[in-house]
Amino acid sequence: MHRNVFFISDGTGITAESFGQSLLAQFTSPEFRHVTLPYVDTVKKAEQALELIDQSRENGQTQPILFMTVLNEEVSSMMHASGAYVIDLFQAFLPGLERQFGQHPLYQAGQKRSTQSNNSYHRRIEAVQFALDNDDGCRTRSYDKADIILLGVSRSGKTPTCIYLGLQFGIYAANYPITEEDLESGTQLPKSLEPHRHKLFGLTIHPGRLAGIRHERKPNSRYASRQQCQFEVANVEQMYRQERIPSINSTDYSVEEIATRIMALTELERRLK
Amino acid sequence: MHRNVFFISDGTGITAESFGQSLLAQFTSPEFRHVTLPYVDTVKKAEQALELIDQSRENGQTQPILFMTVLNEEVSSMMHASGAYVIDLFQAFLPGLERQFGQHPLYQAGQKRSTQSNNSYHRRIEAVQFALDNDDGCRTRSYDKADIILLGVSRSGKTPTCIYLGLQFGIYAANYPITEEDLESGTQLPKSLEPHRHKLFGLTIHPGRLAGIRHERKPNSRYASRQQCQFEVANVEQMYRQERIPSINSTDYSVEEIATRIMALTELERRLK
Repeated sequence: MHRNVFFISDGTGITAESFGQSLLAQFTSPEFRHVTLPYVDTVKKAEQALELIDQSRENGQTQPILFMTVLNEEVSSMMHASGAYVIDLFQAFLPGLERQFGQHPLYQAGQKRSTQSNNSYHRRIEAVQFALDNDDGCRTRSYDKADIILLGVSRSGKTPTCIYLGLQFGIYAANYPITEEDLESGTQLPKSLEPHRHKLFGLTIHPGRLAGIRHERKPNSRYASRQQCQFEVANVEQMYRQERIPSINSTDYSVEEIATRIMALTELERRLK
Repeated sequence: MHRNVFFISDGTGITAESFGQSLLAQFTSPEFRHVTLPYVDTVKKAEQALELIDQSRENGQTQPILFMTVLNEEVSSMMHASGAYVIDLFQAFLPGLERQFGQHPLYQAGQKRSTQSNNSYHRRIEAVQFALDNDDGCRTRSYDKADIILLGVSRSGKTPTCIYLGLQFGIYAANYPITEEDLESGTQLPKSLEPHRHKLFGLTIHPGRLAGIRHERKPNSRYASRQQCQFEVANVEQMYRQERIPSINSTDYSVEEIATRIMALTELERRLK
């Protein structure tokens, strides 16, 4: 027996979805089936949403759960009358904040971005572009401009982490892949990284997991073999210890978690206000 | 007079921050100063957080606002006793859900990821990699595998949007830059895109904004000139109309909004469960 869950918003729905999933993750059962409906900002779209909610109750399903971030008052009332168990994220807190600030909320969707300056928008885009331009160690000359340089063996999660550091925090993150050649000559730091020692941060990963990821790219290759992954991981971890490079094991974390933990561990300052 | 705002979590704090900013954006004043404290998961870290909260009240500042997603009960009580105006996101909704599901919440941080399968993790990483491998039209042969192909002139937001489509929705998004050469021979669709017509989606942008963005990359270049930007934007928009390619103007939207609106407009299905 599963339970139907709706994330409904008159904006992107990203907040409703992300927060709703955090709440649901605190319960081991029932099984949840999710539907996200963004930009429900007119009566017509609200009617379509209500139809989907109604349909989900057929076949003897129990009451659906509805997480909503809806500021449009008409849409909001329609959702409250849907018969679903409604978790209204705005209504729960806006009245309290209204008293705190002594003013009425705007009740306007899409306000979030406008609180951010144009500068902050540019910084994010430039930081993502920096991550792309400085991916996989091709251009070490930009390292002067980098806030951080991630090290790690191939497929240990450097690239997505660099991009997320740019997108979420406006951090200029470069990365340098530690190759087999780097490791064959010993576990000392590659020469080109020496001048940037204070910016280095290492990623590591469980060798079995690494083999699985590499196997999807190049099935049955030497590159994806367990033996090769064990060799590379053992040696790169030895390099981090020997050269005192702070590091994190990415095996059990999502990209968001890896990036946020790096921010916390390095005390890098967020570049977005 | 500003108001100090804390986002405190025993996880990444991303939910507290994102949701808290949505709420605050509904008020035009006072000015808010934000601090995010992730991974506050021990009494010691909670004490450090309390110190920061206390400091913020000095100099006659008014009561700070504290948005928290904290599951650790000890940390949670300490925050409630901080004297700040506390918005406790979990406590507001978990008791209601507890009654709905007839079971106690786990009260364990970091549960979110574990509700996602390993498959979904791989899909995200592979989708981000796909966006990178198929950036700027170098490899049109992978277009068969793409879920969507974004078109647009240089610096109209294709790359970050493709990456975000991968990261957030698991969508394989390629992009093809419409160059000056493409446009000089007229506004018909470039030949290599013909077979993929049903996957095409256009981005456009206000010419003045485009000139500003290009100017940051190549100051005072012809590329960044207002005239050049106007020429390219007018012609690419003509191409979209003539070839009936759906499109969106990215000028006033964040990357998240552009990506979510594209998902809604194209009815692309999310690949992550």
